[in-house]
Amino acid sequence: MNVLNVDLGERSYPIVIGCSLTQSASTLAPFIKGDQVLLVSNETVAPLYMEVLESIINVPVLNTVVLPDGEQHKTLETLNRIFDALLEHRHDRSTTLIALGGGVVGDITGFAAACYQRGVNFVQIPTTLLAQVDSSVGGKTAVNHPSGKNMIGAFHQPQCVLIDIETLQSLPDREYRAGLAEVIKYGLITDVDFFVWLEEHMTSLLARDRGALLYAIEHSCRLKARIVSEDERESGLRAILNLGHTFGHAIETHEGYGEWLHGEAVAAGMCMAADLSRRLGWISMADQARVVALVVEAGLPTTSPDIAPEKFLALMAVDKKALGGEVRLVLLERLGKAVITSEYGSEKLMATLSAN
Amino acid sequence: MNVLNVDLGERSYPIVIGCSLTQSASTLAPFIKGDQVLLVSNETVAPLYMEVLESIINVPVLNTVVLPDGEQHKTLETLNRIFDALLEHRHDRSTTLIALGGGVVGDITGFAAACYQRGVNFVQIPTTLLAQVDSSVGGKTAVNHPSGKNMIGAFHQPQCVLIDIETLQSLPDREYRAGLAEVIKYGLITDVDFFVWLEEHMTSLLARDRGALLYAIEHSCRLKARIVSEDERESGLRAILNLGHTFGHAIETHEGYGEWLHGEAVAAGMCMAADLSRRLGWISMADQARVVALVVEAGLPTTSPDIAPEKFLALMAVDKKALGGEVRLVLLERLGKAVITSEYGSEKLMATLSAN
Repeated sequence: MNVLNVDLGERSYPIVIGCSLTQSASTLAPFIKGDQVLLVSNETVAPLYMEVLESIINVPVLNTVVLPDGEQHKTLETLNRIFDALLEHRHDRSTTLIALGGGVVGDITGFAAACYQRGVNFVQIPTTLLAQVDSSVGGKTAVNHPSGKNMIGAFHQPQCVLIDIETLQSLPDREYRAGLAEVIKYGLITDVDFFVWLEEHMTSLLARDRGALLYAIEHSCRLKARIVSEDERESGLRAILNLGHTFGHAIETHEGYGEWLHGEAVAAGMCMAADLSRRLGWISMADQARVVALVVEAGLPTTSPDIAPEKFLALMAVDKKALGGEVRLVLLERLGKAVITSEYGSEKLMATLSAN
Repeated sequence: MNVLNVDLGERSYPIVIGCSLTQSASTLAPFIKGDQVLLVSNETVAPLYMEVLESIINVPVLNTVVLPDGEQHKTLETLNRIFDALLEHRHDRSTTLIALGGGVVGDITGFAAACYQRGVNFVQIPTTLLAQVDSSVGGKTAVNHPSGKNMIGAFHQPQCVLIDIETLQSLPDREYRAGLAEVIKYGLITDVDFFVWLEEHMTSLLARDRGALLYAIEHSCRLKARIVSEDERESGLRAILNLGHTFGHAIETHEGYGEWLHGEAVAAGMCMAADLSRRLGWISMADQARVVALVVEAGLPTTSPDIAPEKFLALMAVDKKALGGEVRLVLLERLGKAVITSEYGSEKLMATLSAN
C-alpha cells in the first residue's frame, strides 16, 4: 500500500494506492468522521463492488444511490437525485459521501458534497484508470450544461482518494486505453523520464501488469498532486493539465459526447498539440514522431475525425478556457515541458488543423 | 456614503451604504473586473430599478435575467435559468453577476456565481431591508430543496455589497417590518446599546426616516460583518445569527413558505427564545417584556400560530442545524449576549412551546 499526500494546507489529503483496498475496512474508516454515509455509484460499477464496500463501512446510517452510467447523465437532474437521497434519509452536515465509480460518478458526487448544506465531506474511490490518475485527484467537481461540459461546478477537495488497482481488471479494454492517454499526458507536460518509462513499459501496461500499473498510477498521481498543490484553483500552472484538451473538447463536442471517449479525444488532441509545437520549431520532427508512436502503441487515435478547419477553430473557441476571446493552448516547449500560450500564430494553427 | 469592510483576508470586501448608489456609475465600476456582466433581478424589482442600473454599467457585454418573485422559486430550476443565460451569451470566467433584489435574488445569484465555471465574481445590490441588513452580507448562498430550506448552496463572498437605502421607500410595509426583525436580532445577540437605540428610535424607523435608516443599517451590517469575519463558515460563533430561526423555520415549514414572511417567523421565534431564556433564569421577566414590546412596536408577531408542542418540536428537529440529533438553540444569556446551547432541558422547552 502506497500513500501520497496532496499538499493543500488545511485541505491536504492522502491518495492511498493498493491492490485490495475496497476489501479493507481499516483503510477507509479513518476518513469517515460522522455517523452517516451515502455511497454513490452507477449501474455498471454497483453490481461489481457495492456489496463488498457496504460490508466494510461501519456506520449507524448507510444509504446508497445508483445513478445511470454515462457522460450524458452528468446533469443537474442527476445531481438532484443525490440531494433527494440525502434529505430522504436525513443526512446532516457531518455526513460523508463516497463516490464509487469513474469520472462521472466522482465529479457529480463531489459536486453534491460541495453543495449539500454548503459543503460536506467526501471520499473518492475511483474504479477506472482515467479517474484514478486524473479526475479523482485535485478537487475539481462539476456537472455538464447542455451548452458546455463541466460548466457548473466547484473546487471541493476530498478527505482521501482510495485507489484499488484490482478494479481495473474488470474495466473494458477501450476505457482502459482511454485512461492511458492521461498517463501519457503527465510524461509530456512535466516529466520526460516518465515518458521514456512509458515507451519502455507500454506492453506491460497494456497487459495490465500489476507492478507496472502501480508504478504508472502512483507516478501520475504524484505529478498531478504536485501541480494541484502549486495552483489549486487553476490561476496559472494547473492549466498545463489541459494538454490536448482544447483540441479534444472540440472533437467531443463535434462528435457528440460518448461517441469518442474523453481519453481518445485527448490522445488525438495531444498529437495535434505536438504537431503545432513542431511547426513552431519547439520540438523536433523526431520528438513529434515519438509522441505519435506512443499514442499508437496505446491503441489510441492520433488524428481527429474529418472536421473542416474553420469549424474546428469555432469549436475550440467555445471551450470554456476561451469563451471570452483568444484561444490559449497548452503546447510543448520540449518533451516533458508544457507551456500555456496564445502566441502560436493563427496560420500555424490552421496548418495543424488542415494537416490533421 | 459610508463604507464598511468585511474582513476575510483575501476574500475581504466592502459594504457601501448610501442614498443614490444605484444611480452612481463610479461607485459600481471598480467592482466589475471583466468585460461581461449578467444582471439578475425579479419581476417586482426589475421594473423599478433595472433600467437605471443598466444605464450606469459600462461594459461591452451586458445581459439581464428576470426571475419570478418569491421564495417558492428559489430552486435548482430557477438557478438553471441563470446558467442558461450565461451560456447563451457566452460569458466566460471573468464575468460578473449582479444580484438586484431581495434575499431570494441574492441567494440564488450568489449560488450561480459560486458554481458557474467553478466560481465567478458577483456583486450584491440588495433592495429589501432584510437583504440589506442580513442576507446580502456574509457569503451564504443557496437554493431550497422541496424537503428543506437552503439545503443546497455554497459559501461564496461577493466583490462588494451596494446598499441604496432609497430602494426601501418602495418596499411594501409588511416586507419592511419583516426586515426590522433581523435588525432587532443584532441588538439582542450582541449589542444591548443598539437594542436601547432601537427602543428609542423605532418610531423613526417605521417612518423610514433616512437618518435612522442609515444608522440602523450601517450598525447592523457592522455587527454582522464582525461576526462573519470571526467565523466565515459557521463552525461556531456565527450560529448566534440564528437567534429565533430554529423556532422560525418550524413556523415557516408548518404554515408553508410565503404565508409567514421569514422576518415575521423570526420575530415570533425571538420572543420564544426570550421566553425560554427567562424560564432558565438567564433573563428577567422585565427583559423578556422589553423584547416582546419592541417586536410589538415593530408591528411583528410575538407568538407562533397554533401548533401542538409535540408537532412544533418535530418541526424544529428537521431544521438543518439539528438533522442528526439534539436541537441546539440560540438563547439569551442577557440582552445583548446570545449563546448556542443544547443545555436547556426538554421540559422547559415544552413549557415555552405550550405557553406560546
